Amino acid sequence: MNQAGITDPAPRSLLFLALDLVDGTQRRTVDRMLADWSRAIEPATRGKPDAPELTGLDTTGLTMTIGVGPGLPGRLGLTAPKELAPIPPFPGDRLRPTLCGGDLAVQICSNDPLVSLQAAQVLTRLSQGVLTIRWRLPGFTQPGPSTPRNAFGFKDGTGNPRTAADISDAVWISEGPWRHGTFLVVRRITMDVQRFATLPAQRQEAVIGSRRDTGAPLTGHAEFDEVDLFAKNADGTYVLPVDAHNRRAHARFDGGRQMVRRGFTYTSGNDETGLLFLAFMKDPGLFTRVQTRLVEQDALNGFIQHIGSAVFLMLPGTGDGAVLRLPG
Amino acid sequence: MNQAGITDPAPRSLLFLALDLVDGTQRRTVDRMLADWSRAIEPATRGKPDAPELTGLDTTGLTMTIGVGPGLPGRLGLTAPKELAPIPPFPGDRLRPTLCGGDLAVQICSNDPLVSLQAAQVLTRLSQGVLTIRWRLPGFTQPGPSTPRNAFGFKDGTGNPRTAADISDAVWISEGPWRHGTFLVVRRITMDVQRFATLPAQRQEAVIGSRRDTGAPLTGHAEFDEVDLFAKNADGTYVLPVDAHNRRAHARFDGGRQMVRRGFTYTSGNDETGLLFLAFMKDPGLFTRVQTRLVEQDALNGFIQHIGSAVFLMLPGTGDGAVLRLPG
Repeated sequence: MNQAGITDPAPRSLLFLALDLVDGTQRRTVDRMLADWSRAIEPATRGKPDAPELTGLDTTGLTMTIGVGPGLPGRLGLTAPKELAPIPPFPGDRLRPTLCGGDLAVQICSNDPLVSLQAAQVLTRLSQGVLTIRWRLPGFTQPGPSTPRNAFGFKDGTGNPRTAADISDAVWISEGPWRHGTFLVVRRITMDVQRFATLPAQRQEAVIGSRRDTGAPLTGHAEFDEVDLFAKNADGTYVLPVDAHNRRAHARFDGGRQMVRRGFTYTSGNDETGLLFLAFMKDPGLFTRVQTRLVEQDALNGFIQHIGSAVFLMLPGTGDGAVLRLPG
Repeated sequence: MNQAGITDPAPRSLLFLALDLVDGTQRRTVDRMLADWSRAIEPATRGKPDAPELTGLDTTGLTMTIGVGPGLPGRLGLTAPKELAPIPPFPGDRLRPTLCGGDLAVQICSNDPLVSLQAAQVLTRLSQGVLTIRWRLPGFTQPGPSTPRNAFGFKDGTGNPRTAADISDAVWISEGPWRHGTFLVVRRITMDVQRFATLPAQRQEAVIGSRRDTGAPLTGHAEFDEVDLFAKNADGTYVLPVDAHNRRAHARFDGGRQMVRRGFTYTSGNDETGLLFLAFMKDPGLFTRVQTRLVEQDALNGFIQHIGSAVFLMLPGTGDGAVLRLPG
């Protein structure tokens, strides 16, 4: 438990919960709750639900992934890597405090949003008096094997590491009590889909840096062709424009260091549509470096706003039948 | 177009839009917009999307279903059945005006919430200056053939008409310019899932009137066994309790008259979970009669609240390649 929700391709449905710890709660209470959660949900992740809320549902593909926020180690006396610290503010952020942070993160994914919702109900039932909901967001994506599209209509995630070795190398902390844990950076990003949709297709492709139909980079022909950052047109301009999102975000500027992004489209209220950007990485400093480049220059900036932000240290996974507990 | 979204089993994903007409808009403008919508969406409903927003998506199963609210005929000079009138208030309603009503309804259903969202973006693009969004709600259900479950964990929809003849008889208006149209009653119903979940299974089953695991009525053994309203226990009480939801809502009290319910579970904000109750019927008076019985006595009332309400007269469908237009 915990690892499939990080390294597997994202399934259809997400329910993300950011929870706050009730004041005065002890570490042993949190560990007891995590054990209760594990025992209630773990059978369902193997397709054998036994919590009453999950009666009659096909829970194949269910995952539950847990992490702790920067405020928790100090309160519970945990040892955590120094990298567990709030993401610094960026110029242009429009963060709303009620959509940011959290002491504990729960990522619930499944192939059926009702399964995700009912699993969340199990967790809420088992954490009364211990946790309150700080923010909650459901999202969806397209199950693989194809790269899913986002609300701008473009494939999103083509640049992710693809081999098991590259994924492991990108995400898992390699030593100490949090070995086989990882960091999750969450950003709630609104998208002005109506205005983006009015751009001609060629302009959209210049903003993103890839073809709308195939997902191929502007310098290539197929989706997974390597991006050529230096290819030029006859007039001396770059084929991949200097402000294209996929250029600015390219891993080559980070010495090849990668994160695993599992973004989910969401809608809220009458007019908000966006991406819940979830990125797993062994050091959240990578996100900060990439985001610094994007904020400086990115043709996409005119069409998106970051309104929520959080970082969590994700617990190492357990085998079947074992229960999650706080390390460190 | 328009009819599959009423008579087919509900697919995975719903996006419901209630729209208001910009003041001064003429009927011919609405008809032109409906024609634009039809031409943009109808190919996608046949699995052949050509709107740019739908590039690369599998639109199989997409339906778009349109209706008009009670305020529209007077403003546009339409002739409409006199039954098109606001649903009367009921004791216990907790309606919020911003979640009620609308001049125009669009029900978008598909197997992929991104398809529903992108289809809505097409409609919004083609109705700028004509319509504004009054309220919008995404929902989900479980695709058939099994009866889907709701957020209380019970099968919901077992009592629907099941043969094509019974469905047709329940929904289609039989004469006049709105022949082959129908009425849609929409209720946004919040559900106190946490409190319901604390009830023992037997008490939950007494509240609903059916078995949690199989959906069978308390008087039978299999889901579609006929409900016996008069079966008694040895102590003289009814097997199906007098205040069980499924007794109070039973069609026998309406002379067998039925509606077609396609309910979708939704979540909103940090703590709202509920059912977007969509019911199609040839006379909305049927809903009013059933709801009057439920408000009077229904064990479920302690666990739900109606916070949104609307009624729409749904346009008769068209064949492939034809465009929707306002009748009457």
